[in-house]
Amino acid sequence: MSDNRYIGVFDSGIGGLTVVKSIVDSMPGENIIYFGDTAHVPYGTRSERQITEYVLADVRFLRTFDIKAVVIACNTADSVAKEKVKQAYPDLPVFGVVDPASRLAAETTKNGKVGVIATNATVKTGAYEKAIHRYNADATVYMEACPLLVPLVENGRFKTGDPVIEIVLKEYLDPLVEKGIDTLVLGCTHYPLLYGTITHLYPELNVISSSDAAAAKMLGTLIQNGTCNENSEAEQSERKYFVSDDAEGVDKLARVFMGDELGGTFQQVDVE
Amino acid sequence: MSDNRYIGVFDSGIGGLTVVKSIVDSMPGENIIYFGDTAHVPYGTRSERQITEYVLADVRFLRTFDIKAVVIACNTADSVAKEKVKQAYPDLPVFGVVDPASRLAAETTKNGKVGVIATNATVKTGAYEKAIHRYNADATVYMEACPLLVPLVENGRFKTGDPVIEIVLKEYLDPLVEKGIDTLVLGCTHYPLLYGTITHLYPELNVISSSDAAAAKMLGTLIQNGTCNENSEAEQSERKYFVSDDAEGVDKLARVFMGDELGGTFQQVDVE
Repeated sequence: MSDNRYIGVFDSGIGGLTVVKSIVDSMPGENIIYFGDTAHVPYGTRSERQITEYVLADVRFLRTFDIKAVVIACNTADSVAKEKVKQAYPDLPVFGVVDPASRLAAETTKNGKVGVIATNATVKTGAYEKAIHRYNADATVYMEACPLLVPLVENGRFKTGDPVIEIVLKEYLDPLVEKGIDTLVLGCTHYPLLYGTITHLYPELNVISSSDAAAAKMLGTLIQNGTCNENSEAEQSERKYFVSDDAEGVDKLARVFMGDELGGTFQQVDVE
Repeated sequence: MSDNRYIGVFDSGIGGLTVVKSIVDSMPGENIIYFGDTAHVPYGTRSERQITEYVLADVRFLRTFDIKAVVIACNTADSVAKEKVKQAYPDLPVFGVVDPASRLAAETTKNGKVGVIATNATVKTGAYEKAIHRYNADATVYMEACPLLVPLVENGRFKTGDPVIEIVLKEYLDPLVEKGIDTLVLGCTHYPLLYGTITHLYPELNVISSSDAAAAKMLGTLIQNGTCNENSEAEQSERKYFVSDDAEGVDKLARVFMGDELGGTFQQVDVE
């Protein structure tokens, strides 16, 4: 049995492409629609009502294609509006980024001390503490807002050996390591690009990418439901990319996230 | 003769506070209304039509106070919509940031080679080349987009001796210096905070702050028109600060820009 319908993935911007990369790495034959709501990025500073409106518009757009699942590849959108999406589309499997990474962290920490790095907005929602405690009530969760990591990643400064990213990462992570964490969740879809540099600087840490965890959770469900696109090869798979603001320059930035695995170009679309 | 009406200053965010600081430093008795349109920041990625709508709404809000002049303390807004503001309010003196700094650079460069650092959006408008050539047709203008400087400044990383800002600045500025510029325009209202570090790294450069130049131009006009608030002392002056999005955390960020000279707190206001 094989299901060649699309997987819909969306984010307020293009950070969600790390989730697409995780999906493509595991199951290169899946067809994917990606939507980045760049006209409204970042969601983090908007009100809950406004974010919910945007998120429902994002999903409505993805539903104009024949999709078999949707991934909310944005920590803020996931924290604020996942339940609303589930209510609006009860038949659509909806996956987020917070819960899978939280579960993995809760189940793999040995000393119960988990660090989570994220944007200011995600830290303020408290979503990670809540989700980690759901799976491990005794865990101690240390949140650290890292406002410089998104701009540094978007400007290509995530590579091991770059003194700028290494100094900034140490300033954010040393205090967490001093508190004794053995597990670190990368709680922003931009951060998986820092995985190599973080594990190089802190080889003893159990580092969990929320993008990998989200993709793994979704693919596990597709396999269970028999809705994978098993028959297809990577060359046959289709990837469509959309943004809501000017698409100029987006392909270049997207290649920072996905390299040659992008396999498509961005188009502007009006979803309002 | 003295005129105690307000000076209205606006920006898409809080960078325009460097213009307020320049005004306060020269004429501490002036009363000021500041508006940061943080619900729509950054303007740079929006369409011209959209930016013009936002700018006209910003000025409409400032006009609900008794103002004697308005300063467009945002390079993008200035480039795109200054003429529209002048048309809408023919009796209101309107000042921008691009023209005064361009004139000063055009008139003070000795070798005719001027560098301008700015955001991607401002570089794309071509406003600085046009303005500098208006005052010095023979000048060669080298533009450099510096997307990391705004987030670094907003996170307090602008001080001399901070290796992060110094490495990043050298990467942006060394190529301009190698081209032989003798004058550098800080073409973004965030960049005056980097003035000390830049002049420390490049003591030979003639560094021009667009915020200082804008404030000087406006104050010169007020003096000419006899509309300064000459009788007032700093302690008596009134400063009102508004943003269009959540005001939480804004005072803290504003202090990065103005320190104790802020002399007020931010309130949220709906201008739509």
